[in-house]
Amino acid sequence: MPPTTFPTRTQVAIIGAGPAGLLLGQLLHKAGIDAVVLEQRSGDYVLGRIRAGVIEQTTVDLLERAGVAARMHAEGLPHDGFELCVDGQRSRIDLHARTGGKRVTVYGQTEITRDLMAARAEEGLTTVYEATNVEVLDFDGDTPRVRFQHQGRDHELRCDFIAGCDGFHGVCRASVPQSSLRTFEKVYPFGWLGILADVPPVAHELIYVRHERGFALCSMRSATRSRYYLQCSLEDKVEQWSDQAFWDELKRRLDPAAAAALVTGPAIEKSIAPLRSFVTEPMRFGRLFLAGDAAHIVPPTGAKGLNLAASDVQFLAEALTEHYQEKSAAGLDGYSARALARIWKAERFSWWFTSLMHRFPDNAGFGDRMQQAELDYLRQSEAAQTVMAENYVGLPMVA
Amino acid sequence: MPPTTFPTRTQVAIIGAGPAGLLLGQLLHKAGIDAVVLEQRSGDYVLGRIRAGVIEQTTVDLLERAGVAARMHAEGLPHDGFELCVDGQRSRIDLHARTGGKRVTVYGQTEITRDLMAARAEEGLTTVYEATNVEVLDFDGDTPRVRFQHQGRDHELRCDFIAGCDGFHGVCRASVPQSSLRTFEKVYPFGWLGILADVPPVAHELIYVRHERGFALCSMRSATRSRYYLQCSLEDKVEQWSDQAFWDELKRRLDPAAAAALVTGPAIEKSIAPLRSFVTEPMRFGRLFLAGDAAHIVPPTGAKGLNLAASDVQFLAEALTEHYQEKSAAGLDGYSARALARIWKAERFSWWFTSLMHRFPDNAGFGDRMQQAELDYLRQSEAAQTVMAENYVGLPMVA
Repeated sequence: MPPTTFPTRTQVAIIGAGPAGLLLGQLLHKAGIDAVVLEQRSGDYVLGRIRAGVIEQTTVDLLERAGVAARMHAEGLPHDGFELCVDGQRSRIDLHARTGGKRVTVYGQTEITRDLMAARAEEGLTTVYEATNVEVLDFDGDTPRVRFQHQGRDHELRCDFIAGCDGFHGVCRASVPQSSLRTFEKVYPFGWLGILADVPPVAHELIYVRHERGFALCSMRSATRSRYYLQCSLEDKVEQWSDQAFWDELKRRLDPAAAAALVTGPAIEKSIAPLRSFVTEPMRFGRLFLAGDAAHIVPPTGAKGLNLAASDVQFLAEALTEHYQEKSAAGLDGYSARALARIWKAERFSWWFTSLMHRFPDNAGFGDRMQQAELDYLRQSEAAQTVMAENYVGLPMVA
Repeated sequence: MPPTTFPTRTQVAIIGAGPAGLLLGQLLHKAGIDAVVLEQRSGDYVLGRIRAGVIEQTTVDLLERAGVAARMHAEGLPHDGFELCVDGQRSRIDLHARTGGKRVTVYGQTEITRDLMAARAEEGLTTVYEATNVEVLDFDGDTPRVRFQHQGRDHELRCDFIAGCDGFHGVCRASVPQSSLRTFEKVYPFGWLGILADVPPVAHELIYVRHERGFALCSMRSATRSRYYLQCSLEDKVEQWSDQAFWDELKRRLDPAAAAALVTGPAIEKSIAPLRSFVTEPMRFGRLFLAGDAAHIVPPTGAKGLNLAASDVQFLAEALTEHYQEKSAAGLDGYSARALARIWKAERFSWWFTSLMHRFPDNAGFGDRMQQAELDYLRQSEAAQTVMAENYVGLPMVA
C-alpha cells in the first residue's frame, strides 16, 4: 500500500480531533477557511472516551450553525430542570421558569464527536488520525509549522495558525515556554466513581445528591442508558467496587423514593476520575491558540467542560473568520480575554457547585453547616434558584 | 448610703444589658412579663463600646414595636443601596430595586442601646449595672436562680427563665456543660483596623472595597461622623498605625474619585478587631436561653451581628409571651431551631461576603480569581445582585 499523502500547507492546523477540534474545523469550513485536523489517537479510540453530556442552549445553537444538530435534536433529551436531593429531601430547580424559557439538552459528548466526524467525512475534509510525535513549531513567527509522523513516515504541515485543541495532556500548551503562561489550579480531595449501565434512568431529570456519606449524581445518556456517579476516596480502586457495592452505596445516598425506584444492572463501564479546576492564562501565544481542555479544566459538577470548549471554539472561529474575511486582527487579539471572561465564570460556578455538594473530609464542622445553610436558602429563595439556573443553562456568550 | 435593694424574684432574669438584653426586656415589658436585667459593667462602659450600625428593616420594625424607634427615625440614615469597589472600579447594589422596596438604616448600635436604656429608665424597670460574679444556677430544673454581687454584697434572684444575652465572653454559655453543646467556628487570617473620625463620609452610601492590598470599608454613623476600616494583619498593633498611615492606605485601596473626595481628620477611636464565625447549638438548655453574641458571632462584613441578636430576641420574646399568655411550651421548645435556621443563613452570608472581599494570604492564585470571577458575575447578573440584596436587607423572619 502506498504511503498516505497529506496536504503540506493549510490555513489552520488543528491539533486534536475531540469535539473542540472537530467543531472548530466544521465552523472554519463553513466560513471557507481551510483546516487540517491532526489527532494522535485513532478515531475509534476517540469515540471510546466516555464524557459528560449536558449541553447548554448556546452549545446547541452553535452545533446548529455548524450543521451537525440533526441527530441531537432527534435523540437528545431536552431537560427543563434538575433535582437536588439534600440529606434525603428532594427539591427541583426549574431551569425553564427561572431563565425565561431556557433549557439544557442531554446528549452524550461521544455522540457529538460522532456527528462531527461524519460531517467532516461527508465534506471530504482531512483528518489525520494516529499522527504521532506531533510538534508545533515557529508559532512565535509568521510561518508556523507542525511536524508529525504517520505510519513511520515524517510529515510537515505549514500553516497560518495553530489551534491547540489537544486537551489537558496535549502537546500545544506544553510547547509554550513556562515563563509565558500563568496557571491556576485547585485539586479536590476526592474523586468520582462513575458507572454506565443499560438500565432506565431513576428519574426523568438529573438528581444531584448531597449526603453525609458523600455526593452522588443520577444522570443518563438516553431513556435506556444511565450514568451514575458516587463521590469516592482518591485512594479507592475501581476493582474494590463491585457493581453490587456501587448500587448499595448509591441507594444509601438517595431519598427513599428514588432508592426504591432505582433499576440496577451490570456496569458496562466503571471508572474513577479525579476532580480538578485548572486555567492557563493567556490562551494565545503568537499564532498558537489554545481552546477547551488544553487551556482549562473544570470539575464535572455542572457539566461545563464541553460547553466551555464550544464557546472557546466559537470565539476562535469568529476571530479567524474576521482575520481572513475582514483582514482585521481585532478578534485574534481579543480572543484570550474574551474566552477567559466566560471561562472564569464557569470555573467559579463549577467550583461553587462542587464545594456545595461534596463532603470535604477536612471541613466537617463549620463547612458542613455552610453547605446546609446555603442549600436551605437555595430551596427558599427564587433569586438563589435563578443564579443557579442561569449558570447551569450557560451564561451569555458575550459578557 | 444604705445598700441598694433589688427584687429577689422575677419572671425572666436577663443577663447582659447590651442591645439584645435591653430589647428583650422592653418586649417582655410590653407583653406584661416582668424581667430584671443584670449587667456586669457600668452603663457608661456599655455605651462606650463601638459597634456596627446597619439595621435591617426587620430590626427597624421590631424597634418600632418595642416603642424605641422615634430617634432612629429622626436621626438614622435610610440607605437604598451600597457600592462595591473592585480593584478601583465602582458599581452599585440597588437594595431598593432588587428587593421590592426594602432598605437598611444606618444608625449606631450605641444609639440603639442609649434609646433602650432611656426607655427602660422611663418605665422604672430594674437594671442592675456592675453586677459582678454573676452565676446562673439550677436552669436544668424548675426553679432557676441567679446569684451576683453588687457593691460587695451578695444577692440572689429567683426566676422562671434565664435569658443569656451576655455576649461571646459571657457567663451563660460558659455555665452549660460542654457535653450539652456543639460549637462551630472559623477564624479568619486577618483583622479589621477601624477608625472613627468627625469628618463627613466620603459617599452617601457605604463602599465595600476589594483590592489586592486588602479589603476596606467606608461606613458612617451620621452626616458628620465617619467610620472606616482596613483589612490588616493579625500581627499589627494599633500603635503602628498613625492616622496618616491609615488615610494613606485607605486612599490606595479606593478608586481615584473616592480617594480624591476623602476628607481626613484625627481619629477619635482606633482599634483592631479579629474576624470570627462562631455558632453554638442548641440555644436552649432547660430554662436557660441564649440570644445574640452569647450563641453566635459573625464577621462584621455585612453587619449581621446586631440584626441576628434582634431576631433571636424577637423569637424569644414571642416564645415567652406564648408561655405566659397561652400556657403553651411550643414556642420555647421551638426557639432554638427557629433561631438557628435564620442564624445559619446569616452566618453563610457573612462568611460568603467576607470570603469574597478579603485578601487571603494563603490563597493567592485560584482563590483570587474566584473572587474576581464572582464579582464580575455579580456586576452583570440581576439575579446575583438580588441574592446579595435580599441577604443584605435581611432574610424573612420566618423560614
